[in-house]
Amino acid sequence: MTSAHNHTHDKPVYKGWTGSGAVDLAKDQLVEKEFEVKPWDEDDVEVKVLYCGVCGTDIMALEGLEGPAPPNSICGHEIIGQVVKVGSKVENNLKVGQHVGIGYESDSCRECDACLRGQEQACANMTRTFFSKFRRGNGTGAPSQGGFAKYWRGPSKFAIPIPDGVDLSVAGPLMCGGVTMYSPLKRWNVGPGKRVGIIGVGGLGHMGVLFAKAMGAEVTAISRSGSKKEDAEKLGADRYIATGDDIGKAFKEYGRYFDMVICTSNPKSFPIQDYLPILNVEGVFCFIGLIVNPITTSIFPLIERNLIITASAVGSPSVIAEMFNFVKEKQIKPWVQKFDMDDINRALTSFKKGDPRYRYVLVNTDNGGEL
Amino acid sequence: MTSAHNHTHDKPVYKGWTGSGAVDLAKDQLVEKEFEVKPWDEDDVEVKVLYCGVCGTDIMALEGLEGPAPPNSICGHEIIGQVVKVGSKVENNLKVGQHVGIGYESDSCRECDACLRGQEQACANMTRTFFSKFRRGNGTGAPSQGGFAKYWRGPSKFAIPIPDGVDLSVAGPLMCGGVTMYSPLKRWNVGPGKRVGIIGVGGLGHMGVLFAKAMGAEVTAISRSGSKKEDAEKLGADRYIATGDDIGKAFKEYGRYFDMVICTSNPKSFPIQDYLPILNVEGVFCFIGLIVNPITTSIFPLIERNLIITASAVGSPSVIAEMFNFVKEKQIKPWVQKFDMDDINRALTSFKKGDPRYRYVLVNTDNGGEL
Repeated sequence: MTSAHNHTHDKPVYKGWTGSGAVDLAKDQLVEKEFEVKPWDEDDVEVKVLYCGVCGTDIMALEGLEGPAPPNSICGHEIIGQVVKVGSKVENNLKVGQHVGIGYESDSCRECDACLRGQEQACANMTRTFFSKFRRGNGTGAPSQGGFAKYWRGPSKFAIPIPDGVDLSVAGPLMCGGVTMYSPLKRWNVGPGKRVGIIGVGGLGHMGVLFAKAMGAEVTAISRSGSKKEDAEKLGADRYIATGDDIGKAFKEYGRYFDMVICTSNPKSFPIQDYLPILNVEGVFCFIGLIVNPITTSIFPLIERNLIITASAVGSPSVIAEMFNFVKEKQIKPWVQKFDMDDINRALTSFKKGDPRYRYVLVNTDNGGEL
Repeated sequence: MTSAHNHTHDKPVYKGWTGSGAVDLAKDQLVEKEFEVKPWDEDDVEVKVLYCGVCGTDIMALEGLEGPAPPNSICGHEIIGQVVKVGSKVENNLKVGQHVGIGYESDSCRECDACLRGQEQACANMTRTFFSKFRRGNGTGAPSQGGFAKYWRGPSKFAIPIPDGVDLSVAGPLMCGGVTMYSPLKRWNVGPGKRVGIIGVGGLGHMGVLFAKAMGAEVTAISRSGSKKEDAEKLGADRYIATGDDIGKAFKEYGRYFDMVICTSNPKSFPIQDYLPILNVEGVFCFIGLIVNPITTSIFPLIERNLIITASAVGSPSVIAEMFNFVKEKQIKPWVQKFDMDDINRALTSFKKGDPRYRYVLVNTDNGGEL
């Protein structure tokens, strides 16, 4: 083990940036503290955190939107690091020194139908990387702790090997937002000849344009205002539609145009009926942004064109691994701004204000991460 | 040509059961009259109608729910008959004497993306078999007329050959209700190892149980009361759930159980949120009943399990042809009661009251149909 954290075999202590209760990111500061990690299981790995992306769900959790944070909770679930220790039952054939990513999920039950199908992201008893608990082995009952820290420990199955040739310094956001975009595009066979609309050019949407374009699709960025047009074009979008105040007019030429439309935005309510006319026969409308209020639609457009409404979040370990092969092949690089991990409070406050263009990555320079 | 209808080359006249305006099926009577059929096109066929099923959409149309019926309109779109004349550009390789079925759709534009994909049922310029107009060739502007008649004339592409070995006398309902069930079951890969729920044991639902069971799935019939339990079991259902007044309780043991649930019912409103918990990961909820009011759901169950909400109606000519091969192989026979075509008013009034167990077929005994 390195000297970066205190360690006894049974009760290792890491350093991380913790919040307790509901944090007001405009005022309160996350505090760097030592914290206990889960007891060791033989399928665990320990990972030196090099980079950790910031995701909207970290912000929501820290602000107490899911209830008060457990004491000394560590968020951060877009972790890129290096394996420093492996157990005797390590999975993914992980070796010390290897680079891995840890995302939204740190463990699953391994026994339910979802797990047995390789859809671990849908396991009803999954352990989320933050604000959750482990439920197996020695770790049973121990809190899961995320990547706003120097080290991470957890089940090796959820530490996904990153192939050489992927730019680690921008890879963090792929672990949550990236796979949330990649998974539905892949699931619904986006590729050459397909027309894809991406609603929202933000953290998720900008990766959506990169992925869909790299898959060979014709890509249209759809946004309320025209403010992201230049960025969308730089990202590779073939077309930009600003819906403005008259969505019917904006979509007038696009009746039955799209094979798939993915909504990355997360307004409280979303008028899905306004978007169904632009879907072609068997067209897919997929939500990946979190819309809090229920959606409402007549079923007649669905009947008329066999439309599909679905939603998706993150992806299983195997889908993340597959994504990394694609990222390497196409050299996909999310647009990120980097902050030293010591500047985490500045980063979170800025993120909360909506500044990112389009994702933030925190860097543990003392662990070898590059700013 | 036979003597059953008057005929000149340009202006043939058939006999059929017509309604005009909005028909009150409790009082008004459809009247047998002569009517003009479409001018001949060289890709047309003429078909001697042996049988014609009665479908809920006939009733809706006759009652004026789509607006007043055009004068002398002939409904009926589950037609089974025998080819008596083919044009020089006949499609489907049809020959005089062959048995064919005509369903909900009598023509499509042949040019749009839906048509080019072989999804003619979604053509925005389709000609419906009743209360619609032809839009091509000599037939342009002529009303389409259905199967409550002695003969049918229309584009041969939509006269689907029926293989020998299919029981013609019960096949009518397959042309609309049958393919409406078959198409989504096939589209979503229902087969061995899949668990399918069919909501509603009626005209559509009873065929759903027959089809899903013949495909090798485990089939659960879901109904409000227990009154259809015995029938569902006779049809082959493995299980029957009566939802009663406490749907949460009825579904308690079926969390994440079903791969697909198809709603064949058509109440004005449908509480889809109550049904999503029973869907497994990537589970599909498909509407085929016409729910008039919009549906409302939170997107969170969809996100959690990548659920799919879709809808479907009828099927393309190629799917109908495929269905008939399956019907022949598995000897699928809808449960029908037969009426002489002369008793059409009695049949429609009884249908309207909800009597069918589970479909009605009108028989032209004078054309050789068997009661």
